[in-house]
Amino acid sequence: MYITSLDKAEKSIPTMPGATGVTKQVPISAGDGAPNYCFRVFTIEPGGNTPFHSHPFEHLNYVISGQGLLVGENDEHAIGKGDFCLVLPGEKHQYKNPQGNLEALAVICAVPVNYE
Amino acid sequence: MYITSLDKAEKSIPTMPGATGVTKQVPISAGDGAPNYCFRVFTIEPGGNTPFHSHPFEHLNYVISGQGLLVGENDEHAIGKGDFCLVLPGEKHQYKNPQGNLEALAVICAVPVNYE
Repeated sequence: MYITSLDKAEKSIPTMPGATGVTKQVPISAGDGAPNYCFRVFTIEPGGNTPFHSHPFEHLNYVISGQGLLVGENDEHAIGKGDFCLVLPGEKHQYKNPQGNLEALAVICAVPVNYE
Repeated sequence: MYITSLDKAEKSIPTMPGATGVTKQVPISAGDGAPNYCFRVFTIEPGGNTPFHSHPFEHLNYVISGQGLLVGENDEHAIGKGDFCLVLPGEKHQYKNPQGNLEALAVICAVPVNYE
């Protein structure tokens, strides 16, 4: 049994091309004993975004705070605090916090631990 | 790509012995296409609790709102909005919202889809 919060989770800056204004934390990881899935949190500042990309694993999201966009191949969706999102394996996607927003967009992004 | 929120997720009342004052929702389920893991949400009213039990799968939790207790075999932990919890497979556990609290305790409880 393990309890933590974001203020205790180490912050890193994703270096993958196409990521701007993004901070990553992993409050529940394989290192904590999670056998199958982990909880990562991406915090995206106004004007920032994750890469527009796809990969062979899914994302399960919960929006902790802020507002932004989940961009797909042919569409984009407004997302905000309290929303849940599912991105399927192989789907192109990008999380964006538009310039001019006042608050960071913080999103739980749960994935299998081998993609932590 | 699928986006939803709790107000759109069907509510059910868990009937397992030992659950009191608990509502279950499954905003991201196998039925939505989630291949490995699902996001369930349990909302526990003040004075309510989940069963004190164990099972062969883990819980990954995020506390959406409220305050309460995560009870283990030999200890209990205060939990509240913003906390993340990991309950390992086989660990006895119970989520409680003590009588006298003013707000419901709402907790994301992510598990493998075969235990949805």
